[in-house]
Amino acid sequence: MPSTIYDVTTWTIPASPSTTAYTDIGAIVNSIIADIKTNQPTQASKPGAVIYVPPGDYSLKTRIVIDISYLQIKGSGHGFTSSSIRYNAGDTSGWHEIWPGGSRIRVENTDGNAEAILISRSGDPRLSSIELLDFCLDGVSFTPNQNSYLNGKIGIRSTTATDSLRIRGLGIVYLERGIVITDADALHIQGNFICENGSCIELVGSGQASMVNDNMIGAGYVGFSVYAENHFGLIVSGNNIFPRGKSSVHLKNSTNNTISANRLHAFYPGMIQCEGACHNNLIGSNHFLRVPESFPAMTGFSNGLDDLFGLVQLNGSGNTVVGNHFSYDVPAANITPSGATPTIVLVKSGSNNYVATNHTAANVAVHTVVLDGSTVNTKVLDCGTTAEFQALTGATYGFRATP
Amino acid sequence: MPSTIYDVTTWTIPASPSTTAYTDIGAIVNSIIADIKTNQPTQASKPGAVIYVPPGDYSLKTRIVIDISYLQIKGSGHGFTSSSIRYNAGDTSGWHEIWPGGSRIRVENTDGNAEAILISRSGDPRLSSIELLDFCLDGVSFTPNQNSYLNGKIGIRSTTATDSLRIRGLGIVYLERGIVITDADALHIQGNFICENGSCIELVGSGQASMVNDNMIGAGYVGFSVYAENHFGLIVSGNNIFPRGKSSVHLKNSTNNTISANRLHAFYPGMIQCEGACHNNLIGSNHFLRVPESFPAMTGFSNGLDDLFGLVQLNGSGNTVVGNHFSYDVPAANITPSGATPTIVLVKSGSNNYVATNHTAANVAVHTVVLDGSTVNTKVLDCGTTAEFQALTGATYGFRATP
Amino acid sequence: MPSTIYDVTTWTIPASPSTTAYTDIGAIVNSIIADIKTNQPTQASKPGAVIYVPPGDYSLKTRIVIDISYLQIKGSGHGFTSSSIRYNAGDTSGWHEIWPGGSRIRVENTDGNAEAILISRSGDPRLSSIELLDFCLDGVSFTPNQNSYLNGKIGIRSTTATDSLRIRGLGIVYLERGIVITDADALHIQGNFICENGSCIELVGSGQASMVNDNMIGAGYVGFSVYAENHFGLIVSGNNIFPRGKSSVHLKNSTNNTISANRLHAFYPGMIQCEGACHNNLIGSNHFLRVPESFPAMTGFSNGLDDLFGLVQLNGSGNTVVGNHFSYDVPAANITPSGATPTIVLVKSGSNNYVATNHTAANVAVHTVVLDGSTVNTKVLDCGTTAEFQALTGATYGFRATP
Repeated sequence: MPSTIYDVTTWTIPASPSTTAYTDIGAIVNSIIADIKTNQPTQASKPGAVIYVPPGDYSLKTRIVIDISYLQIKGSGHGFTSSSIRYNAGDTSGWHEIWPGGSRIRVENTDGNAEAILISRSGDPRLSSIELLDFCLDGVSFTPNQNSYLNGKIGIRSTTATDSLRIRGLGIVYLERGIVITDADALHIQGNFICENGSCIELVGSGQASMVNDNMIGAGYVGFSVYAENHFGLIVSGNNIFPRGKSSVHLKNSTNNTISANRLHAFYPGMIQCEGACHNNLIGSNHFLRVPESFPAMTGFSNGLDDLFGLVQLNGSGNTVVGNHFSYDVPAANITPSGATPTIVLVKSGSNNYVATNHTAANVAVHTVVLDGSTVNTKVLDCGTTAEFQALTGATYGFRATP
Repeated sequence: MPSTIYDVTTWTIPASPSTTAYTDIGAIVNSIIADIKTNQPTQASKPGAVIYVPPGDYSLKTRIVIDISYLQIKGSGHGFTSSSIRYNAGDTSGWHEIWPGGSRIRVENTDGNAEAILISRSGDPRLSSIELLDFCLDGVSFTPNQNSYLNGKIGIRSTTATDSLRIRGLGIVYLERGIVITDADALHIQGNFICENGSCIELVGSGQASMVNDNMIGAGYVGFSVYAENHFGLIVSGNNIFPRGKSSVHLKNSTNNTISANRLHAFYPGMIQCEGACHNNLIGSNHFLRVPESFPAMTGFSNGLDDLFGLVQLNGSGNTVVGNHFSYDVPAANITPSGATPTIVLVKSGSNNYVATNHTAANVAVHTVVLDGSTVNTKVLDCGTTAEFQALTGATYGFRATP
Repeated sequence: MPSTIYDVTTWTIPASPSTTAYTDIGAIVNSIIADIKTNQPTQASKPGAVIYVPPGDYSLKTRIVIDISYLQIKGSGHGFTSSSIRYNAGDTSGWHEIWPGGSRIRVENTDGNAEAILISRSGDPRLSSIELLDFCLDGVSFTPNQNSYLNGKIGIRSTTATDSLRIRGLGIVYLERGIVITDADALHIQGNFICENGSCIELVGSGQASMVNDNMIGAGYVGFSVYAENHFGLIVSGNNIFPRGKSSVHLKNSTNNTISANRLHAFYPGMIQCEGACHNNLIGSNHFLRVPESFPAMTGFSNGLDDLFGLVQLNGSGNTVVGNHFSYDVPAANITPSGATPTIVLVKSGSNNYVATNHTAANVAVHTVVLDGSTVNTKVLDCGTTAEFQALTGATYGFRATP
């Protein structure tokens, strides 16, 4: 049987023997994928292969296109380091090292494509069980400046449906978009370091029964840390989501998902946003911390939302917000609109939402729960005093003040 | 020192040189285990070995018997794909591939045994730290039809006590029983895809201090997704448990376990069943979704329970059900018994159970909590209206309606 | 390019060709690290390397010093077994094996140092993305007796700040201190077996945005299972923390951390201790079990705290304790002070703490919540009867009894 184990450092492209993984790991991987196809011509047996990426500094000039199932690309090091700190540090000529490392793929496409890795195939079945493990995708730099989070680069993108895709142990840094997955089923994103990207994880199109657990995540001021649209049955649990994403978790038109046992830290309002028709989601046992921007280089930026938006904003019906802790510690002078009473949870629309036993510790007077006038039959229990609760005219609700 | 690194594709059985991993990976692994024993004769140093299974299509004709500690069997690909969809898809002649892949072991015993992998040893100490990682166990087909979930095959079974067993990153598909572990201590089942098996995870005999976290799990209509009996100190957290198991998590005679931060989705009542003497368990921060069967090929099946059984049914005392979300969306015509008011949480027996701040979003009128007449001193707080609460004659309780 | 893949069993130290990984794996690894530095002289490209430790029995005589970023040390087996059971078992001459295994490093320093692995570097930047994976650190024995948890040995210690350090899949056993990390940022400790050490995980100095998830942990009677000081944004979730640590999780002067969805089991009071100035932490959806010591060899020991200390003791303000289950099952004769009513949650100081919907199942009468006289504006909701609540003179609070 032909080997199913490949090493990018020892592979030679038959038609281009001078290309190496150091000069274009994308061309190397694509050539390996072609070889795998040649070796597995039969529909009845296509087990795929593993492509190993040893620790090293690799340039990717050509987009990798994964159009076979069961391909595993595995490195030996997530290699994350803070490029943001380094770029803002001034003279780094005396530093031990200045770049990310591990099995580091520098995303430097010269092929006109945005993606380092594209997952796409037409026909049936959906691509299954592709695995991306333990390497680093580094966008290297942003333009026009290193705090812009912009460079047009995408780390991993799928444009057709997948089943049981696994992304584990990666480091993803300084990309405009880290991971963009379309029409996911049973997607498993676990144990990654996905930080200092414009957006980190975007689950687009639609999706079901997926998992984003135990990751370190932190996006740019205009991007998503975790975004999902038209998703159903997603679990987001056990993550540590840092600033400074424009949100921590953003659901759009998504029903029956769960966001639990996460630690969420943000510099702006709108930490969890349920946009559009978001029904029957659970937001439970999470820790929220909202403070002002602390990094001098970034103090000029925000997500554009004001403090009336809510740390959590719900649109839709039947959602549950229970057992969360909210810390709000923003100097009065930084609150917008000026003089406003900040909102912790805003129920913006819908009926039958349930908000109970959430505790807020704040440095200023806040509204722990605000109900839009359009909302129907919200339950608000033990989330603060009567003075901390605000129901706009027209809202119907059951309210019990914390004694 | 003899090498402790083995590759199933390069090993030859001295007495059977024509056998390969492709013809019988079980015989190959057993021969390797014999070699490990020969090389580690001294009680004072038996560190074990790693057996690598590269991506490939392997047939297992002979049961693997693991009777040494510290054996790691590791593949490079969990290889799950939905065989259920494929078998029900009609003509698949045009499909890219039709089988699971990765490091795929086809469970095709010809030795009269049910198991692909048996873990068993008499004497002391218990087998420790066996690790099964990142490969695929594929039962290939069910009989008499592909929707029966029956074929008599078991993926991994232990029949003697183990300590610190680790099962991580596997794909397990189309087996009648995926994992059956007896008398587990500090068992760690994490990050697996265990779907489309009759039963997925069964922890039998007894057990303590074990963990089932971050898995994708979905059993057949008559099997268990996660089952534990006589267990103590089990944590089931962060899992995404799909249909169509006859339950999502089933505890029997088990005390002081915790089921938290999971996403549970089912087509039948009885999602979490605490059977027999189940005391002092926590069911917290989980998302439950109960809908009717959606796959046309499976609409004729069920687990046989009716809608009065409860999505959660507690038997035993001192249990805690707090901070969960329940979605119930079943057409009235599908509810059994006909015309019944479905039950969300049924406290069937016991005293001092505590059911609080659970929110139900339902498409029909439901009883959010029902107390059997035998139950004593249950607390039911903020789980719905008085009309949604039902205490049968004889029950004693404290109740507070959601305002 | 020089290889970045090293194997400890094939490396020779140029100046000491007789040293092997079996005689001193520390000297071997240090020599490899020196080679990595020689091969990566340029600040602009230091991707690091992977050092592989096959299954085997290795002695560490010389401390490993990691002073480069992106180094991955990876084994093939966590190798944990209970040495405590074995040492207390009497005659083990008939046992199959008697020691831990896997990729087992015996910590047997002869260099005068306490650590097996020291992570330390001066200058900028912080060491990043060091990864320690899937091997075993075994302290071999305690002195003066095998139940003392004392031997002066430390498994992994960092003394300078790190970023994105990953510790995953290790077995750590019979060390006085398992892991001691100074000034952590984005530390990721996941999926390890860290048991039967004096202390298991100590996060010292300061730290932020770190994660301790999905581990099996159990310390000695005078040590920490999980300890963090001056930490901010730590998540401790999904762990199974066994006895017999003097605490399960101990925070000191730490603010805005979260302890959720864990299973905690202890033989003493003081399971979660928030010491000093601990503000705005969340303790949610955890399962607590407090029983007496069950192992005859250990019944003489304790952590010295009495049953008035609280299973949870809070010092500080704005903390949230919500949705937890507490099992307390201690014979009356074992309770100290004799005749005392045990305390479940003690709010010892601070203002604006919030304790709600926690359920206690106890074999004796307990105080579910006790407020020190110094405490201000604590909220205690649905945590038991009026008789189970105790507010010492001077305390101010809102209280609602479970109906």
